Amino acid sequence: MMKEWLNSAYSDGSGYFVSNPLPKKGETIRILLRCIRNEELKCVILRAKVNGAEQLITMNEYKEVNGLIYYSCEIRIWEDELRYQFYLVTEKEIYYYTQYRITDYVPDEIYDFCILTNYQQPEWVKKAVFYQIFPDRFYNGDPSNDVKTDEYQFQGHGTIHIEDWNMEPMDYLHSFGLDFYGGDLKGIKDKIPYLKELGVTALYINPIFRAATVHKYDCIDYFEIDEHLGGNQALAELSQVLHENGMKIVLDISINHTGSASRWFNKECIFYPESIGAYHNKDAKERSYYFINDDNSYLGWYGVESLPVLNYTSQELRDKVYRAQDSVIKKWLKEPYCIDGWRFDVADVMARNNKFQLHKEIWPEIRNSVKEEKEDAYILAEDWGDCVEHLRGNEWDATMNYFACARPIREFVGEIDLFQQRKEELQFYLSKMTADNLRNRIAQYLGKLPFTMQEVQFNMIDTHDISRLHNNVRISFEDYKTAVILYFTLPGTPSIYYGDEVGIKGRIHDVEGSRYPMPWKDGKERSKYYQLYQNLTRLKTTKDALMYGGLKFISSNDYVLVYARCSDMKTIFIIASADDMKRVVKIPYTYYGYTSCEKVTDALGAKVNWDVLNNKLNIYVPPHSSYILELN
Amino acid sequence: MMKEWLNSAYSDGSGYFVSNPLPKKGETIRILLRCIRNEELKCVILRAKVNGAEQLITMNEYKEVNGLIYYSCEIRIWEDELRYQFYLVTEKEIYYYTQYRITDYVPDEIYDFCILTNYQQPEWVKKAVFYQIFPDRFYNGDPSNDVKTDEYQFQGHGTIHIEDWNMEPMDYLHSFGLDFYGGDLKGIKDKIPYLKELGVTALYINPIFRAATVHKYDCIDYFEIDEHLGGNQALAELSQVLHENGMKIVLDISINHTGSASRWFNKECIFYPESIGAYHNKDAKERSYYFINDDNSYLGWYGVESLPVLNYTSQELRDKVYRAQDSVIKKWLKEPYCIDGWRFDVADVMARNNKFQLHKEIWPEIRNSVKEEKEDAYILAEDWGDCVEHLRGNEWDATMNYFACARPIREFVGEIDLFQQRKEELQFYLSKMTADNLRNRIAQYLGKLPFTMQEVQFNMIDTHDISRLHNNVRISFEDYKTAVILYFTLPGTPSIYYGDEVGIKGRIHDVEGSRYPMPWKDGKERSKYYQLYQNLTRLKTTKDALMYGGLKFISSNDYVLVYARCSDMKTIFIIASADDMKRVVKIPYTYYGYTSCEKVTDALGAKVNWDVLNNKLNIYVPPHSSYILELN
Repeated sequence: MMKEWLNSAYSDGSGYFVSNPLPKKGETIRILLRCIRNEELKCVILRAKVNGAEQLITMNEYKEVNGLIYYSCEIRIWEDELRYQFYLVTEKEIYYYTQYRITDYVPDEIYDFCILTNYQQPEWVKKAVFYQIFPDRFYNGDPSNDVKTDEYQFQGHGTIHIEDWNMEPMDYLHSFGLDFYGGDLKGIKDKIPYLKELGVTALYINPIFRAATVHKYDCIDYFEIDEHLGGNQALAELSQVLHENGMKIVLDISINHTGSASRWFNKECIFYPESIGAYHNKDAKERSYYFINDDNSYLGWYGVESLPVLNYTSQELRDKVYRAQDSVIKKWLKEPYCIDGWRFDVADVMARNNKFQLHKEIWPEIRNSVKEEKEDAYILAEDWGDCVEHLRGNEWDATMNYFACARPIREFVGEIDLFQQRKEELQFYLSKMTADNLRNRIAQYLGKLPFTMQEVQFNMIDTHDISRLHNNVRISFEDYKTAVILYFTLPGTPSIYYGDEVGIKGRIHDVEGSRYPMPWKDGKERSKYYQLYQNLTRLKTTKDALMYGGLKFISSNDYVLVYARCSDMKTIFIIASADDMKRVVKIPYTYYGYTSCEKVTDALGAKVNWDVLNNKLNIYVPPHSSYILELN
Repeated sequence: MMKEWLNSAYSDGSGYFVSNPLPKKGETIRILLRCIRNEELKCVILRAKVNGAEQLITMNEYKEVNGLIYYSCEIRIWEDELRYQFYLVTEKEIYYYTQYRITDYVPDEIYDFCILTNYQQPEWVKKAVFYQIFPDRFYNGDPSNDVKTDEYQFQGHGTIHIEDWNMEPMDYLHSFGLDFYGGDLKGIKDKIPYLKELGVTALYINPIFRAATVHKYDCIDYFEIDEHLGGNQALAELSQVLHENGMKIVLDISINHTGSASRWFNKECIFYPESIGAYHNKDAKERSYYFINDDNSYLGWYGVESLPVLNYTSQELRDKVYRAQDSVIKKWLKEPYCIDGWRFDVADVMARNNKFQLHKEIWPEIRNSVKEEKEDAYILAEDWGDCVEHLRGNEWDATMNYFACARPIREFVGEIDLFQQRKEELQFYLSKMTADNLRNRIAQYLGKLPFTMQEVQFNMIDTHDISRLHNNVRISFEDYKTAVILYFTLPGTPSIYYGDEVGIKGRIHDVEGSRYPMPWKDGKERSKYYQLYQNLTRLKTTKDALMYGGLKFISSNDYVLVYARCSDMKTIFIIASADDMKRVVKIPYTYYGYTSCEKVTDALGAKVNWDVLNNKLNIYVPPHSSYILELN
């Protein structure tokens, strides 16, 4: 039913197809759609929703480049969002083109193209390569500030100083999160040359505020950098040197809860006298910051007593955390720390519980506070699910993209789904996800996001919260490479979890197993892992198509996914095969503005077996292999 | 890939599968899912989102009825919405079941099953059959109040009293909307026995507030029923008699704009002296009700000068229209008028323009005002598109269901899409919509709605704004019957546009052509049209499956759509064919709790050609025919 040439129809929200992708209200913009010249296409209509009503605007031929006709129309935007579809009108049929796909029936509007007028995009993110650091395990730049063994007791256990940097981390039942290797902010600063050589342009650093545990999600004072990581001064220095090197820094924080040892709560009186904090003082102003009952029972995150949940019905807490000039959120965005964004831990459940659902009120307020301080700050939220309700331009910029990146990509190459591992009945299911399912997962998610938000989603395959993919012995290097290529070449910014670039060791069945110390001395920097990542960071930060181009799926047969990243006339084609069979992939290159195909190169240097027949490029793809192709 | 038995998995939001479909916050409910007993299904898991976080709840076997296993779990609801999916877990695969469909990959969450805790459902709507009346054209009960020829002049033209009730209406360029036949509220009251015999239980009456034109969408006084329709007293009487007969009444109003001759605006000074109204008096309080500039230019609906748009930035206007005890909206809900709901004209563009987007603020306020006055009042909004954003329980109850009912059903039987008729380049396109496309249109729309809102959507194929389907000579009676069966048997309440039940005459190329006077004397009441509608109203108001049951699509091959309405153990099967070929439809009756199939009856009395093979009922469906089937 669908005509083959329909696959050449293409538009996106980038500067290649929209005269201003980030317009202001009242602005008139030009929107383009291109399609291969053909007799069947009679006209192209842009269907927009304006002040609630449908508008159908006939698009005109605007230019022809290499056989591609560009259709164009202008429209003035008055609202927060302009939502639109395209009608491709042939002699007998009308086809409907949304961000998700082309149908031959009127589609619903959730996948409409969408341009935001109220969105302050952190533009630097779309060409960034992030590097995630778990600070205690990265590099010890200043041994004088190390946590000493039994320096303090916490929840009945003493701190442990790990003397041998290369020792495998204990599991939680032995360490209780109190095993410190000594990594610190000076260590990160010392390794900036290493990171630059790798091609990293931005850091996402796990929590560094004062806290008793090594993971520090149980903060005791949001206003102080932990002294064992170097204190406030070390952050100021790190940030300064990063910025001098053209790099960005994003800090991680949980403002959903504090630790029970927090200055505000101070249940155990380990770090502060009993006169301080909400738990022992019914009249303390901090009492209103938590959900504490008269009998001193209180609400903990997932019922965990050591993580009392913050109570955002308190206006004073809102001031303290994000609203006041000297609030937590603003303090670290200001001089001399000048961080470039926040990663909000457990953002999915933030300000939500059985009594209060304040999230729709709190997130826009937080966004406003952040953006008041720094217009291009990045607001990255932790949510592992389908959370597009928060991605409409007035709350988060991005999520940790588990839902449409880490989870399906890991499944595609043979890993068990991260979520399902948590449920006994589901934990052993291997989906052997097809390419078509992978495509749907990605296309349905991105299809709901405005393009300017697609561009800044935070893509990864590994984090501190999940096992490292390459540590699963069932995953071959070839399949791992496929996963890495996928997450580097999808729209969004890729994040390398420290050590992945050297094939760091790890265990896959406990979370401590993905927090091994960085192996600095074993010379793996030039390994196949390193080469892969270094090549990809270079491509991601130099190729227009990967920084600014939209995504177009080409095919998804069997276990081979093929897509293009389109930068006007310079397209990059990605082939990702997790297939046990050799397959032939067909790329209709004329649909991308190539009038011929003389040369096909893999950007990662692999030999490509190809030929051309009937204006189609045939690529002969061996089992379990992937390419990033450029033509001519 | 998909196992056949998966099609037996079923749940919905009705009382058959949810212990309380309209729970309060804090309530614990039981949710059921049923599936045919089989070896492959290892477990069923309910996946809910609770306070932002995923919860996976294993469901237990609860009961077995006729080979169907019912799985069950309990969950306590704390939020406005409980959203959930089901995981059907087999030995090797997990399948994901949402309201839209079953996939073998993790679906996005837009089609989740959804239970609302904040929703005041007008429960009577789900078992209602509406009848829409354009009052001037229905029945003249009191000739003494008829508009006289040249009784007044309006926009340069005089009123016309049509002497011959059976005369065909003039087109607009001859009548200018001033041709009055004399139908009135007493006429409606007089015909209540007729309506009851037809099986109607609720009336939707087009505007009756004082206005110069026959359509009355250009209201001049919201506080008065037009004297030519009988005035306020006639409404009180009509309402009383309807209620005595167990019937409901919904009035139509445009609070988006008034007429320019309105008491509040009074531009032309036809009905009020110049000292009254906003247009000629810069200090009039009504000045703030409109968008009038200093030079007296003003905003009209779609630029139409005779329809000045109301300005809801004015708090006083909000009071006047819906907030105060004596506001327009409340007045008519109160004694002695006691109407049962409002149909809001052009609700899609209400309180939205280039300067102000107040709709997300206004609609919840309007809903609160209505519900304060009458808890089970029906809030029906005009929106022809995909407007699920307004259907979350806190704004509208329903839309005029053009998007997923009138438009696709008319297309399915061979009509041009209503929207596309408006655009020159598209107006001649006949889609010949496949059954699968029709299914997708309906399933994607309903799939986004909470079940308790699916139940009250306002379904129709004809209205005063579009041509009558049967007036298109290209549509055979058989195809027309299919369309009527579809809209009567889909979830929601069906509305008969007056006269459709007697095959009323009409023209299809101008809107006046669908407002012919009701032909009372030609004896068509017992025609095939009448039989069809009378049978369907009886079914809709007596069969549990059609009043309370959920929808399950069975197949959608070629041009034959097959679905079930499920009321626990008594299912109704609908087969709708617009196919030129004879087709065989297979119904796996054991999936619906039938252990055998002894008898197959069409509820409309058609002969059914069937047999049974391998636990499947085969129905031999002639071209262009439809059935409503009951088994045993």
